[in-house]
Amino acid sequence: MVKKLADAERAAHLADLPAWKLAEGRDGITRSFRFKDFSQAFGFMSRVALLAEKADHHPEWSNVWNRVDILLTTHDAGGLSMRDIEMAKAIDAL
Amino acid sequence: MVKKLADAERAAHLADLPAWKLAEGRDGITRSFRFKDFSQAFGFMSRVALLAEKADHHPEWSNVWNRVDILLTTHDAGGLSMRDIEMAKAIDAL
Repeated sequence: MVKKLADAERAAHLADLPAWKLAEGRDGITRSFRFKDFSQAFGFMSRVALLAEKADHHPEWSNVWNRVDILLTTHDAGGLSMRDIEMAKAIDAL
Repeated sequence: MVKKLADAERAAHLADLPAWKLAEGRDGITRSFRFKDFSQAFGFMSRVALLAEKADHHPEWSNVWNRVDILLTTHDAGGLSMRDIEMAKAIDAL
């Protein structure tokens, strides 16, 4: 069972993820990405989709042309968990 | 130059697209799709991305696991245009 991160844990992990912010109104983390164009944005989304499927942990995300907004949260845990931290790191590593 | 559809035109075209609704608060049309799982949903998104890139007309869209929400509007026309109607038909044909 995946557990929601306690306050002290999340502060420590978020310090490692400076590009991610706590979401407003949701217990999760978000990051916006901008690319040169749609082709680059969707190429990135395809790589994230492969990561997500492999980890069986899927983002909530949206795309408008060159922009991709990602929200990571863990429904099973009712909020932010280590699975989100790990996925954010994997996305940052792309 | 792409023109925004007049009221009479949009009514006629929307009658051909029963699964699409006028968006709330935006001059565009929306449709929600549900699939068996993320893999099917992202497979569909990949096909829509290819259509969009070919037509150089891109959706505003979001995905949460098996669900894909699409909004079509034409920024250059300041609202709903024939390009959206054509894209909606192409998406329905997938």
